[in-house]
Amino acid sequence: MSTSKLIAIVAGVGPGTGAAVARKFAAQYPVVLLARNPDNFDSLVSEINGAGGKAVGISTDIADAGSIKSAFDGIKKEFGGDVGLAAAVFNASGRFVRKPFLELTEDEFVAGYDVSGKGAFLFSQATMPLLLNSVSKSKYPPSLIFTGATASVKGSAMMSSFATGKWAMRALAQSLAREFGPKGVHVSHAIIDGVIDIPRTKEWLKDAGPDAKISAEGIADAYWHLHTQPKTTFTWEIDIRPAVEKW
Amino acid sequence: MSTSKLIAIVAGVGPGTGAAVARKFAAQYPVVLLARNPDNFDSLVSEINGAGGKAVGISTDIADAGSIKSAFDGIKKEFGGDVGLAAAVFNASGRFVRKPFLELTEDEFVAGYDVSGKGAFLFSQATMPLLLNSVSKSKYPPSLIFTGATASVKGSAMMSSFATGKWAMRALAQSLAREFGPKGVHVSHAIIDGVIDIPRTKEWLKDAGPDAKISAEGIADAYWHLHTQPKTTFTWEIDIRPAVEKW
Amino acid sequence: MSTSKLIAIVAGVGPGTGAAVARKFAAQYPVVLLARNPDNFDSLVSEINGAGGKAVGISTDIADAGSIKSAFDGIKKEFGGDVGLAAAVFNASGRFVRKPFLELTEDEFVAGYDVSGKGAFLFSQATMPLLLNSVSKSKYPPSLIFTGATASVKGSAMMSSFATGKWAMRALAQSLAREFGPKGVHVSHAIIDGVIDIPRTKEWLKDAGPDAKISAEGIADAYWHLHTQPKTTFTWEIDIRPAVEKW
Amino acid sequence: MSTSKLIAIVAGVGPGTGAAVARKFAAQYPVVLLARNPDNFDSLVSEINGAGGKAVGISTDIADAGSIKSAFDGIKKEFGGDVGLAAAVFNASGRFVRKPFLELTEDEFVAGYDVSGKGAFLFSQATMPLLLNSVSKSKYPPSLIFTGATASVKGSAMMSSFATGKWAMRALAQSLAREFGPKGVHVSHAIIDGVIDIPRTKEWLKDAGPDAKISAEGIADAYWHLHTQPKTTFTWEIDIRPAVEKW
Repeated sequence: MSTSKLIAIVAGVGPGTGAAVARKFAAQYPVVLLARNPDNFDSLVSEINGAGGKAVGISTDIADAGSIKSAFDGIKKEFGGDVGLAAAVFNASGRFVRKPFLELTEDEFVAGYDVSGKGAFLFSQATMPLLLNSVSKSKYPPSLIFTGATASVKGSAMMSSFATGKWAMRALAQSLAREFGPKGVHVSHAIIDGVIDIPRTKEWLKDAGPDAKISAEGIADAYWHLHTQPKTTFTWEIDIRPAVEKW
Repeated sequence: MSTSKLIAIVAGVGPGTGAAVARKFAAQYPVVLLARNPDNFDSLVSEINGAGGKAVGISTDIADAGSIKSAFDGIKKEFGGDVGLAAAVFNASGRFVRKPFLELTEDEFVAGYDVSGKGAFLFSQATMPLLLNSVSKSKYPPSLIFTGATASVKGSAMMSSFATGKWAMRALAQSLAREFGPKGVHVSHAIIDGVIDIPRTKEWLKDAGPDAKISAEGIADAYWHLHTQPKTTFTWEIDIRPAVEKW
Repeated sequence: MSTSKLIAIVAGVGPGTGAAVARKFAAQYPVVLLARNPDNFDSLVSEINGAGGKAVGISTDIADAGSIKSAFDGIKKEFGGDVGLAAAVFNASGRFVRKPFLELTEDEFVAGYDVSGKGAFLFSQATMPLLLNSVSKSKYPPSLIFTGATASVKGSAMMSSFATGKWAMRALAQSLAREFGPKGVHVSHAIIDGVIDIPRTKEWLKDAGPDAKISAEGIADAYWHLHTQPKTTFTWEIDIRPAVEKW
Repeated sequence: MSTSKLIAIVAGVGPGTGAAVARKFAAQYPVVLLARNPDNFDSLVSEINGAGGKAVGISTDIADAGSIKSAFDGIKKEFGGDVGLAAAVFNASGRFVRKPFLELTEDEFVAGYDVSGKGAFLFSQATMPLLLNSVSKSKYPPSLIFTGATASVKGSAMMSSFATGKWAMRALAQSLAREFGPKGVHVSHAIIDGVIDIPRTKEWLKDAGPDAKISAEGIADAYWHLHTQPKTTFTWEIDIRPAVEKW
């Protein structure tokens, strides 16, 4: 495989944002899709490969250092040890726990951080060297994009597990943007403030009209725009919500 | 002129962001350029018209209700009373005053608000009805975009005039986003955090490297992306800064 | 009158926060009460003077430079030209306008800034020299405290007049804190997030329980705490809300 | 020991904030001091007991559920199973790691969260039931106060371990304030923005003047003020910094 090849990696692929981002970036780059459960990427891998693109799915536990290492060994085996990385998108979320604080177990509380904090750290450490190596090779500044949520900026009642993880991830993204922006890597954080329109949410918000849910394609377009920003014009953070959302 | 025509209006056109935004939006829409001094838009109007686009410049004092009214009378005369407005960009800034607080005159203090607060209000009131009327006609949701600055989120010492105006403008933008988003108009605010690369700043930041100043074209690309977002996926705020900027 | 005397000045005295702050600070300092309408301070002046304190009321239009000048001329006549100022509290608010944006007149929009922006500027310029002169004389660092609101950090729909004024005031307070903190003057901003418990709000929030409204005395205690902070330990901002408030 | 007794608990006692808070609250309540190393509380326990107060030190690993359980078993044994808790202060911080992101080990990264996230959770779960039980018994609303830092609101380069922990703690504090405020427990978060004046920092900031470091006593006074706020007037967050601090 050509060493000049640049790829994109999306961690946290399901039916919504992750898949839309993968399709969008697959138009330009071979894409690697990471998810714990292959059911989450198998059909998408087939779809992209069948449409003339290139996609590889790797079953990965994003919160486990060994699993991340295996995944990146696999990536280097597939694409070459000097593969360049044009874009890495961290779209994983841990278990969503919403319950009275005093009923939370330690495991449930830590679940939010486990993926959004530790997992984001492991993914960032695995991808950053590849992003740095691509600064001079990539048409667009190599990009590391984190998917946040309303809970990234608001600690609501009974949401401490999710919110602590998401706030930690936002802090990480900001710290990385400040350290690696001057080195040419574009780190961004997106606050996705609303319900994504996916099969699981089909029955939600029906009274709020046809446009009450966020289009995953719209998110993917925003991420692609972030990726194409030149290094004179980096955005660290955008918020995204439906026009009708109360906020 | 066809009544189905949609136009774009840019208030505050100089050699930087305003001009780049005008060029970008002129590829899709006839553009109206507002500035107090015609020297700020004359050559740009010629350039756009000469390149096959359509541009009109109108000398306007953005902080004066009568002047705004004249400008919009002129726009309707030129484009028809039922002209649609696809995008309005408020890029004006008042006098920049930086001095010890106790040396500020009342006029100097109010200068920041005069344009960024009252001027932004007048421009919003003039454009919003035209934006609302275009919701069903425009391919992309009609957009009202405000250009903010570092001083929109930080009140630095000796910067109270500029900062109070910019904070007021950000509050206005947020209030409008909440009132008119559900009606289909996309209101956004951009925090431009750094020095724009224009002739006047040519000698600035020379030691910080070739990419230390913000490209006005990069800002224009970001505004265009905001404009094209579907109503399921509105961004209220983005920040923009050079990769090497300290923040 | 002794030149070593330190006074406190409260601008915007009505039945709620202003009166409670005046009573609290009157226990330590002679107080000057400013309000446009003497009905707002007359009985309070009598009350404080009758209780062994010292209070003076001066009818003042806080948004008018001439009226402010008259007020401070009166203060110097009363307390001596070298009177020291231990604390100044800006508690004034302009007309509260809540209506659809397109129905706002220019006067209504500007009303928010007129008091909260321009008025706060005029009051700050009048008080700051007196505060600076008291740095070495005052037991507690001379203090300038601004009363903000929910609308100081949130631009709600139909609230652009009030919010733009309050955001401008918060920017001013932050800018002043940065410029004058190092000179020994303590500038603070309080976000009062809820309904104050005053006669006019007696019938409000009745279903929310006995503690659903903010106690003006509680605010006064917080302002007094801010005033007593040593210069090693300055608070710029506090938020204050009832325990039951949704936020 | 009388069952009507109310106590205060301070987690994270060293020579600075924790000790000052313990002394301040010991004037009103018996205090329990938690730290991993008894050297951090032994002399303070003697000092408080010797001065007529009541203090108990318990060696505790705040990030370990078993250690927390032992500590609270000890507290109940000492003060009775129905002991009331007037105030709990979480002042612990994990290992402070500042180094290039790519040199961080997983352990170093997680160290920030371990104490500030998981430890804060464990401490909150242990103290909240005691705080809730004291709502009707305590003169002042039972209080849970978290000590934050500049890094609670800013993710600086090379500070991702510390910042992710502190942002997580702030999210937790906000979530708890929203859940338990309406139940009468006052949850607050303090942003301590500067260097505390303790023996270890004696040589720091010498050029910045005598007041360039934060007085731990000033912090303790602020915490006491927060504790005494009535339930109509709760502050969630304050920032604290020296007057001369750049921010």
